[in-house]
Amino acid sequence: MGMHLEECEEACFMAKGKVSDIIIGRLPIYLRELTYLAEEGREITSSQELGDRLGISSAQIRKDLSHFGEFGKQGTGYHIGFLSEKLREILKVDRVWDVVLVGAGYLGHALANYGGFIGKGFNIVAVFDNDPAKIGQPLGRLIVQDSKDLPKAIKEHGWKIAILAVPASAAQEVTDVLVESGIRAILNYAPVILNVPPGVRVQYIDPVIDLQHMTYYL
Amino acid sequence: MGMHLEECEEACFMAKGKVSDIIIGRLPIYLRELTYLAEEGREITSSQELGDRLGISSAQIRKDLSHFGEFGKQGTGYHIGFLSEKLREILKVDRVWDVVLVGAGYLGHALANYGGFIGKGFNIVAVFDNDPAKIGQPLGRLIVQDSKDLPKAIKEHGWKIAILAVPASAAQEVTDVLVESGIRAILNYAPVILNVPPGVRVQYIDPVIDLQHMTYYL
Repeated sequence: MGMHLEECEEACFMAKGKVSDIIIGRLPIYLRELTYLAEEGREITSSQELGDRLGISSAQIRKDLSHFGEFGKQGTGYHIGFLSEKLREILKVDRVWDVVLVGAGYLGHALANYGGFIGKGFNIVAVFDNDPAKIGQPLGRLIVQDSKDLPKAIKEHGWKIAILAVPASAAQEVTDVLVESGIRAILNYAPVILNVPPGVRVQYIDPVIDLQHMTYYL
Repeated sequence: MGMHLEECEEACFMAKGKVSDIIIGRLPIYLRELTYLAEEGREITSSQELGDRLGISSAQIRKDLSHFGEFGKQGTGYHIGFLSEKLREILKVDRVWDVVLVGAGYLGHALANYGGFIGKGFNIVAVFDNDPAKIGQPLGRLIVQDSKDLPKAIKEHGWKIAILAVPASAAQEVTDVLVESGIRAILNYAPVILNVPPGVRVQYIDPVIDLQHMTYYL
Protein backbone atom coordinates (compact mmCIF):
# COMPACT_ATOMS: atom_id res chain seq x y z
CA MET A 1 0.00 0.00 0.00
CA GLY A 2 1.61 3.21 -1.09
CA MET A 3 4.84 1.42 -1.94
CA HIS A 4 6.11 2.07 -5.41
CA LEU A 5 6.76 -1.03 -7.49
CA GLU A 6 10.48 -0.47 -7.92
CA GLU A 7 10.81 0.14 -4.20
CA CYS A 8 8.93 -3.07 -3.63
CA GLU A 9 11.27 -5.03 -5.87
CA GLU A 10 14.27 -3.49 -4.21
CA ALA A 11 12.92 -4.20 -0.73
CA CYS A 12 12.60 -7.80 -1.84
CA PHE A 13 16.23 -7.91 -2.97
CA MET A 14 17.34 -6.19 0.22
CA ALA A 15 15.44 -8.72 2.28
CA LYS A 16 17.49 -11.42 0.54
CA GLY A 17 20.63 -9.38 1.18
CA LYS A 18 21.11 -8.75 -2.52
CA VAL A 19 21.23 -5.62 -4.62
CA SER A 20 19.27 -5.70 -7.86
CA ASP A 21 21.27 -6.49 -10.98
CA ILE A 22 20.04 -3.28 -12.61
CA ILE A 23 21.81 -1.29 -9.89
CA ILE A 24 24.98 -3.40 -10.23
CA GLY A 25 24.91 -2.69 -13.96
CA ARG A 26 25.02 1.06 -13.28
CA LEU A 27 28.09 0.95 -11.02
CA PRO A 28 30.62 0.47 -13.88
CA ILE A 29 29.00 3.45 -15.62
CA TYR A 30 29.47 5.57 -12.50
CA LEU A 31 33.07 4.38 -12.21
CA ARG A 32 33.79 5.24 -15.84
CA GLU A 33 32.36 8.74 -15.43
CA LEU A 34 34.43 9.28 -12.27
CA THR A 35 37.51 8.23 -14.24
CA TYR A 36 36.72 10.83 -16.89
CA LEU A 37 36.29 13.48 -14.20
CA ALA A 38 39.62 12.50 -12.62
CA GLU A 39 41.29 12.72 -16.04
CA GLU A 40 39.92 16.27 -16.28
CA GLY A 41 41.84 16.98 -13.09
CA ARG A 42 38.76 17.08 -10.88
CA GLU A 43 38.79 15.92 -7.23
CA ILE A 44 35.21 16.45 -6.06
CA THR A 45 31.87 15.79 -7.75
CA SER A 46 28.21 15.59 -6.79
CA SER A 47 25.33 13.23 -7.55
CA GLN A 48 23.82 16.18 -9.42
CA GLU A 49 26.84 16.54 -11.72
CA LEU A 50 27.18 12.80 -12.25
CA GLY A 51 23.47 12.60 -13.00
CA ASP A 52 23.60 15.46 -15.50
CA ARG A 53 26.51 13.86 -17.32
CA LEU A 54 24.88 10.42 -17.39
CA GLY A 55 21.23 11.28 -17.94
CA ILE A 56 20.28 9.64 -14.64
CA SER A 57 18.56 11.46 -11.77
CA SER A 58 20.80 12.52 -8.88
CA ALA A 59 18.36 10.82 -6.50
CA GLN A 60 18.84 7.53 -8.34
CA ILE A 61 22.62 7.80 -8.05
CA ARG A 62 22.47 8.57 -4.32
CA LYS A 63 20.08 5.68 -3.79
CA ASP A 64 22.20 3.25 -5.82
CA LEU A 65 25.34 4.15 -3.90
CA SER A 66 23.58 4.06 -0.53
CA HIS A 67 23.28 0.28 -0.88
CA PHE A 68 27.02 0.01 -0.43
CA GLY A 69 27.85 2.61 2.20
CA GLU A 70 28.27 6.32 2.89
CA PHE A 71 30.50 7.78 0.20
CA GLY A 72 29.72 11.46 0.30
CA LYS A 73 28.71 14.20 2.69
CA GLN A 74 25.65 16.40 2.37
CA GLY A 75 26.78 19.63 0.81
CA THR A 76 30.37 18.62 0.04
CA GLY A 77 29.72 15.88 -2.53
CA TYR A 78 31.88 12.90 -3.38
CA HIS A 79 35.65 12.70 -3.33
CA ILE A 80 36.31 11.25 -6.78
CA GLY A 81 39.41 9.26 -5.83
CA PHE A 82 37.79 7.72 -2.79
CA LEU A 83 34.49 6.85 -4.50
CA SER A 84 36.35 5.37 -7.49
CA GLU A 85 38.43 3.21 -5.15
CA LYS A 86 35.31 2.00 -3.34
CA LEU A 87 33.50 1.21 -6.61
CA ARG A 88 36.55 -0.72 -7.82
CA GLU A 89 36.45 -2.76 -4.60
CA ILE A 90 32.71 -3.40 -4.90
CA LEU A 91 33.05 -4.45 -8.55
CA LYS A 92 36.20 -6.46 -7.70
CA VAL A 93 38.29 -4.59 -10.26
CA ASP A 94 40.76 -3.40 -7.62
CA ARG A 95 42.77 -6.29 -9.07
CA VAL A 96 43.57 -7.43 -12.63
CA TRP A 97 41.59 -10.36 -13.98
CA ASP A 98 43.07 -12.73 -16.52
CA VAL A 99 40.73 -13.02 -19.50
CA VAL A 100 40.79 -15.74 -22.13
CA LEU A 101 39.79 -14.75 -25.64
CA VAL A 102 38.19 -17.37 -27.87
CA GLY A 103 38.20 -16.58 -31.57
CA ALA A 104 41.16 -15.18 -33.52
CA GLY A 105 39.23 -13.76 -36.48
CA TYR A 106 38.85 -10.06 -37.23
CA LEU A 107 36.99 -9.41 -33.99
CA GLY A 108 39.55 -11.37 -31.96
CA HIS A 109 42.30 -9.29 -33.52
CA ALA A 110 40.45 -6.08 -32.70
CA LEU A 111 39.92 -7.18 -29.09
CA ALA A 112 43.52 -8.32 -28.61
CA ASN A 113 44.65 -4.88 -29.73
CA TYR A 114 41.94 -2.94 -27.87
CA GLY A 115 43.40 -0.18 -25.71
CA GLY A 116 40.33 0.19 -23.51
CA PHE A 117 41.10 -2.67 -21.10
CA ILE A 118 44.24 -1.04 -19.69
CA GLY A 119 43.80 0.04 -16.09
CA LYS A 120 40.20 -1.19 -16.00
CA GLY A 121 40.81 -4.55 -14.32
CA PHE A 122 41.24 -6.88 -17.29
CA ASN A 123 44.11 -8.41 -19.21
CA ILE A 124 43.71 -10.77 -22.15
CA VAL A 125 46.30 -13.44 -21.38
CA ALA A 126 45.54 -16.08 -24.00
CA VAL A 127 43.72 -16.55 -27.28
CA PHE A 128 42.35 -19.75 -28.78
CA ASP A 129 40.97 -20.75 -32.16
CA ASN A 130 40.19 -24.03 -33.89
CA ASP A 131 41.42 -22.92 -37.33
CA PRO A 132 44.73 -24.68 -38.14
CA ALA A 133 45.70 -21.68 -40.27
CA LYS A 134 45.48 -19.43 -37.21
CA ILE A 135 46.94 -21.69 -34.52
CA GLY A 136 50.56 -20.78 -33.78
CA GLN A 137 50.24 -17.36 -35.42
CA PRO A 138 50.90 -14.18 -33.44
CA LEU A 139 47.95 -12.04 -32.40
CA GLY A 140 49.12 -8.81 -30.78
CA ARG A 141 51.59 -9.93 -28.13
CA LEU A 142 50.02 -13.43 -27.91
CA ILE A 143 50.24 -16.63 -29.92
CA VAL A 144 46.98 -18.27 -31.02
CA GLN A 145 46.54 -21.60 -29.26
CA ASP A 146 44.53 -24.64 -30.30
CA SER A 147 40.93 -24.67 -28.98
CA LYS A 148 41.27 -28.32 -28.06
CA ASP A 149 43.71 -27.24 -25.33
CA LEU A 150 41.16 -24.82 -23.83
CA PRO A 151 39.79 -27.07 -21.05
CA LYS A 152 43.26 -27.96 -19.77
CA ALA A 153 44.47 -24.33 -19.88
CA ILE A 154 41.38 -22.96 -18.11
CA LYS A 155 41.66 -25.49 -15.32
CA GLU A 156 45.43 -25.06 -14.97
CA HIS A 157 45.32 -21.28 -14.75
CA GLY A 158 41.99 -21.02 -12.94
CA TRP A 159 40.63 -18.53 -15.50
CA LYS A 160 37.10 -17.35 -14.69
CA ILE A 161 36.38 -14.84 -17.49
CA ALA A 162 36.15 -15.44 -21.24
CA ILE A 163 35.43 -13.23 -24.21
CA LEU A 164 33.63 -15.06 -26.99
CA ALA A 165 34.50 -13.80 -30.48
CA VAL A 166 33.52 -16.87 -32.50
CA PRO A 167 30.86 -17.23 -35.22
CA ALA A 168 27.26 -17.51 -33.99
CA SER A 169 27.12 -21.12 -35.19
CA ALA A 170 29.97 -22.12 -32.84
CA ALA A 171 29.08 -19.98 -29.83
CA GLN A 172 26.98 -22.46 -27.83
CA GLU A 173 29.39 -25.34 -28.37
CA VAL A 174 32.35 -23.25 -27.21
CA THR A 175 30.31 -21.95 -24.27
CA ASP A 176 29.63 -25.49 -23.09
CA VAL A 177 33.36 -26.23 -23.10
CA LEU A 178 34.17 -22.97 -21.28
CA VAL A 179 31.57 -23.52 -18.58
CA GLU A 180 32.55 -27.14 -18.06
CA SER A 181 36.17 -26.07 -17.63
CA GLY A 182 35.41 -23.46 -14.97
CA ILE A 183 34.62 -20.17 -16.73
CA ARG A 184 32.01 -18.20 -14.74
CA ALA A 185 31.63 -15.00 -16.78
CA ILE A 186 31.31 -14.78 -20.56
CA LEU A 187 31.26 -11.65 -22.68
CA ASN A 188 29.56 -12.76 -25.89
CA TYR A 189 29.93 -10.89 -29.19
CA ALA A 190 28.07 -13.48 -31.28
CA PRO A 191 24.45 -12.60 -32.15
CA VAL A 192 23.02 -15.61 -30.31
CA ILE A 193 21.59 -16.27 -26.86
CA LEU A 194 23.71 -18.69 -24.82
CA ASN A 195 22.36 -21.34 -22.50
CA VAL A 196 24.41 -21.50 -19.33
CA PRO A 197 23.79 -23.15 -15.97
CA PRO A 198 23.00 -21.12 -12.83
CA GLY A 199 26.08 -19.44 -11.40
CA VAL A 200 27.48 -18.55 -14.82
CA ARG A 201 26.90 -15.03 -16.11
CA VAL A 202 26.72 -13.89 -19.72
CA GLN A 203 26.74 -10.32 -21.03
CA TYR A 204 26.04 -9.57 -24.67
CA ILE A 205 27.68 -7.02 -26.91
CA ASP A 206 24.88 -6.29 -29.35
CA PRO A 207 25.30 -3.21 -31.54
CA VAL A 208 21.69 -3.52 -32.72
CA ILE A 209 20.39 -2.57 -29.26
CA ASP A 210 22.41 0.65 -29.31
CA LEU A 211 21.51 1.48 -32.91
CA GLN A 212 17.77 0.94 -32.29
CA HIS A 213 18.02 3.10 -29.17
CA MET A 214 19.24 5.96 -31.38
CA THR A 215 16.83 5.55 -34.30
CA TYR A 216 13.96 6.35 -31.92
CA TYR A 217 15.24 9.93 -31.95
CA LEU A 218 15.83 10.24 -35.70
CA MET B 1 4.42 14.44 -1.20
CA GLY B 2 4.25 10.69 -1.45
CA MET B 3 5.52 10.75 -5.02
CA HIS B 4 8.43 8.41 -5.63
CA LEU B 5 11.50 10.01 -7.20
CA GLU B 6 11.42 7.96 -10.38
CA GLU B 7 7.73 8.73 -10.78
CA CYS B 8 8.55 12.37 -10.29
CA GLU B 9 11.22 12.29 -12.99
CA GLU B 10 8.88 10.49 -15.32
CA ALA B 11 6.05 12.92 -14.63
CA CYS B 12 8.47 15.66 -15.57
CA PHE B 13 9.33 13.96 -18.86
CA MET B 14 5.64 13.28 -19.53
CA ALA B 15 4.83 16.92 -18.89
CA LYS B 16 7.33 17.76 -21.64
CA GLY B 17 5.72 15.15 -23.86
CA LYS B 18 8.85 13.00 -23.71
CA VAL B 19 9.57 9.51 -22.50
CA SER B 20 12.74 9.09 -20.43
CA ASP B 21 15.78 7.84 -22.34
CA ILE B 22 16.17 4.97 -19.87
CA ILE B 23 12.77 3.64 -20.99
CA ILE B 24 13.66 4.11 -24.68
CA GLY B 25 16.83 2.13 -24.04
CA ARG B 26 14.78 -0.83 -22.80
CA LEU B 27 12.53 -1.03 -25.87
CA PRO B 28 15.17 -2.64 -28.14
CA ILE B 29 15.76 -5.23 -25.41
CA TYR B 30 12.04 -6.04 -25.31
CA LEU B 31 11.97 -6.26 -29.10
CA ARG B 32 14.95 -8.62 -29.14
CA GLU B 33 13.36 -10.88 -26.55
CA LEU B 34 10.08 -10.94 -28.52
CA THR B 35 12.08 -11.93 -31.61
CA TYR B 36 13.61 -14.85 -29.69
CA LEU B 37 10.16 -15.94 -28.51
CA ALA B 38 8.84 -15.75 -32.09
CA GLU B 39 11.79 -17.84 -33.26
CA GLU B 40 10.79 -20.42 -30.66
CA GLY B 41 7.41 -20.57 -32.42
CA ARG B 42 5.57 -18.68 -29.72
CA GLU B 43 2.64 -16.34 -30.48
CA ILE B 44 1.62 -15.00 -27.06
CA THR B 45 3.66 -13.83 -24.09
CA SER B 46 3.12 -11.90 -20.86
CA SER B 47 4.90 -9.12 -19.01
CA GLN B 48 5.62 -11.76 -16.37
CA GLU B 49 7.39 -14.06 -18.84
CA LEU B 50 9.28 -11.21 -20.50
CA GLY B 51 10.31 -9.94 -17.08
CA ASP B 52 11.53 -13.35 -15.95
CA ARG B 53 13.59 -13.75 -19.09
CA LEU B 54 15.08 -10.26 -18.86
CA GLY B 55 15.53 -9.82 -15.12
CA ILE B 56 13.16 -6.85 -15.12
CA SER B 57 9.95 -6.67 -13.08
CA SER B 58 6.72 -7.32 -14.98
CA ALA B 59 5.33 -4.07 -13.56
CA GLN B 60 8.23 -2.14 -15.05
CA ILE B 61 7.59 -3.68 -18.47
CA ARG B 62 3.86 -2.90 -18.37
CA LYS B 63 4.63 0.65 -17.27
CA ASP B 64 7.28 1.16 -19.97
CA LEU B 65 4.94 -0.06 -22.71
CA SER B 66 1.99 1.94 -21.37
CA HIS B 67 3.75 5.14 -22.47
CA PHE B 68 3.18 4.12 -26.08
CA GLY B 69 -0.28 2.58 -26.10
CA GLU B 70 -2.34 -0.45 -25.14
CA PHE B 71 -0.56 -3.52 -26.44
CA GLY B 72 -2.00 -6.34 -24.35
CA LYS B 73 -5.15 -7.38 -22.60
CA GLN B 74 -5.45 -8.22 -18.92
CA GLY B 75 -5.32 -11.98 -18.64
CA THR B 76 -4.47 -12.73 -22.26
CA GLY B 77 -1.05 -11.11 -22.48
CA TYR B 78 0.72 -9.74 -25.53
CA HIS B 79 0.46 -10.96 -29.10
CA ILE B 80 4.16 -11.27 -29.97
CA GLY B 81 3.79 -10.38 -33.65
CA PHE B 82 1.66 -7.34 -32.96
CA LEU B 83 3.81 -6.01 -30.11
CA SER B 84 7.00 -6.55 -32.15
CA GLU B 85 5.51 -4.62 -35.04
CA LYS B 86 4.50 -1.76 -32.76
CA LEU B 87 7.94 -1.63 -31.13
CA ARG B 88 9.58 -1.58 -34.57
CA GLU B 89 7.38 1.39 -35.48
CA ILE B 90 8.17 3.22 -32.24
CA LEU B 91 11.91 2.61 -32.66
CA LYS B 92 11.65 3.45 -36.37
CA VAL B 93 13.17 0.13 -37.42
CA ASP B 94 10.11 -0.82 -39.46
CA ARG B 95 12.38 0.35 -42.29
CA VAL B 96 16.04 -0.34 -43.17
CA TRP B 97 18.54 2.41 -42.33
CA ASP B 98 21.66 2.88 -44.37
CA VAL B 99 24.69 2.89 -42.09
CA VAL B 100 28.13 4.19 -42.95
CA LEU B 101 31.07 2.41 -41.38
CA VAL B 102 34.23 4.40 -40.70
CA GLY B 103 37.37 2.33 -40.13
CA ALA B 104 38.42 -0.69 -42.17
CA GLY B 105 40.74 -2.28 -39.62
CA TYR B 106 40.09 -5.56 -37.81
CA LEU B 107 36.96 -4.19 -36.12
CA GLY B 108 35.66 -2.73 -39.38
CA HIS B 109 36.12 -6.12 -41.01
CA ALA B 110 34.29 -7.82 -38.17
CA LEU B 111 31.40 -5.34 -38.39
CA ALA B 112 31.12 -5.55 -42.18
CA ASN B 113 30.79 -9.32 -41.85
CA TYR B 114 28.54 -9.25 -38.76
CA GLY B 115 25.39 -11.31 -39.24
CA GLY B 116 23.46 -9.66 -36.43
CA PHE B 117 22.25 -6.63 -38.40
CA ILE B 118 20.11 -8.64 -40.81
CA GLY B 119 16.41 -8.04 -40.31
CA LYS B 120 17.05 -5.61 -37.44
CA GLY B 121 16.72 -2.37 -39.40
CA PHE B 122 20.32 -1.67 -40.42
CA ASN B 123 22.45 -2.17 -43.49
CA ILE B 124 26.08 -1.13 -43.77
CA VAL B 125 26.18 0.45 -47.23
CA ALA B 126 29.65 1.98 -47.32
CA VAL B 127 32.98 1.83 -45.54
CA PHE B 128 35.67 4.50 -45.37
CA ASP B 129 39.28 4.60 -44.20
CA ASN B 130 42.17 7.02 -44.56
CA ASP B 131 44.84 4.33 -45.00
CA PRO B 132 46.03 4.27 -48.65
CA ALA B 133 46.78 0.56 -48.25
CA LYS B 134 43.11 -0.11 -47.47
CA ILE B 135 41.38 2.27 -49.87
CA GLY B 136 40.07 0.42 -52.93
CA GLN B 137 40.35 -2.98 -51.22
CA PRO B 138 37.26 -5.17 -50.80
CA LEU B 139 35.72 -5.48 -47.36
CA GLY B 140 32.94 -8.06 -47.34
CA ARG B 141 30.71 -7.04 -50.26
CA LEU B 142 31.94 -3.42 -50.14
CA ILE B 143 34.99 -1.54 -51.38
CA VAL B 144 36.85 0.65 -48.90
CA GLN B 145 36.52 4.32 -49.88
CA ASP B 146 38.77 7.25 -49.09
CA SER B 147 37.81 9.13 -45.89
CA LYS B 148 38.32 12.45 -47.64
CA ASP B 149 35.20 11.62 -49.70
CA LEU B 150 33.10 11.10 -46.55
CA PRO B 151 31.48 14.56 -46.35
CA LYS B 152 30.37 14.50 -49.97
CA ALA B 153 29.02 10.93 -49.73
CA ILE B 154 27.12 11.58 -46.51
CA LYS B 155 25.46 14.67 -47.94
CA GLU B 156 24.70 13.03 -51.28
CA HIS B 157 23.08 9.95 -49.78
CA GLY B 158 21.57 11.66 -46.75
CA TRP B 159 23.07 9.10 -44.37
CA LYS B 160 22.14 9.72 -40.73
CA ILE B 161 23.84 6.82 -38.91
CA ALA B 162 27.54 6.01 -38.62
CA ILE B 163 29.52 3.29 -36.89
CA LEU B 164 32.88 4.47 -35.69
CA ALA B 165 35.58 1.78 -35.75
CA VAL B 166 38.67 3.98 -35.83
CA PRO B 167 41.52 4.27 -33.28
CA ALA B 168 40.74 6.32 -30.17
CA SER B 169 43.22 8.97 -31.29
CA ALA B 170 41.22 9.64 -34.48
CA ALA B 171 37.69 9.30 -33.09
CA GLN B 172 36.93 12.94 -32.25
CA GLU B 173 38.35 14.27 -35.50
CA VAL B 174 36.27 11.81 -37.55
CA THR B 175 33.22 12.59 -35.42
CA ASP B 176 33.50 16.29 -36.20
CA VAL B 177 33.52 15.50 -39.93
CA LEU B 178 30.56 13.12 -39.60
CA VAL B 179 28.46 15.58 -37.62
CA GLU B 180 29.28 18.47 -39.91
CA SER B 181 28.22 16.37 -42.89
CA GLY B 182 24.83 15.44 -41.44
CA ILE B 183 25.29 12.28 -39.32
CA ARG B 184 22.89 12.34 -36.35
CA ALA B 185 23.59 8.99 -34.63
CA ILE B 186 27.03 7.52 -33.96
CA LEU B 187 27.81 4.09 -32.57
CA ASN B 188 31.31 4.48 -31.17
CA TYR B 189 33.62 1.50 -30.53
CA ALA B 190 36.66 3.62 -29.61
CA PRO B 191 37.40 3.90 -25.87
CA VAL B 192 36.94 7.66 -25.81
CA ILE B 193 34.09 10.07 -25.03
CA LEU B 194 32.99 12.09 -28.05
CA ASN B 195 31.93 15.71 -27.98
CA VAL B 196 28.92 16.28 -30.19
CA PRO B 197 26.49 19.18 -30.49
CA PRO B 198 22.88 18.92 -29.26
CA GLY B 199 20.70 16.88 -31.59
CA VAL B 200 23.42 14.32 -32.28
CA ARG B 201 23.33 11.06 -30.33
CA VAL B 202 26.23 8.80 -29.45
CA GLN B 203 26.10 5.29 -28.03
CA TYR B 204 29.22 3.55 -26.80
CA ILE B 205 30.22 -0.07 -27.18
CA ASP B 206 32.40 -0.55 -24.14
CA PRO B 207 33.23 -4.15 -23.18
CA VAL B 208 34.70 -2.96 -19.87
CA ILE B 209 31.25 -1.97 -18.60
CA ASP B 210 29.93 -5.48 -19.24
CA LEU B 211 33.02 -7.19 -17.82
CA GLN B 212 32.90 -5.10 -14.63
CA HIS B 213 29.20 -5.86 -14.30
CA MET B 214 30.09 -9.57 -14.16
CA THR B 215 33.12 -9.40 -11.87
CA TYR B 216 30.82 -8.13 -9.11
CA TYR B 217 29.42 -11.65 -8.94
CA LEU B 218 32.73 -13.52 -9.07
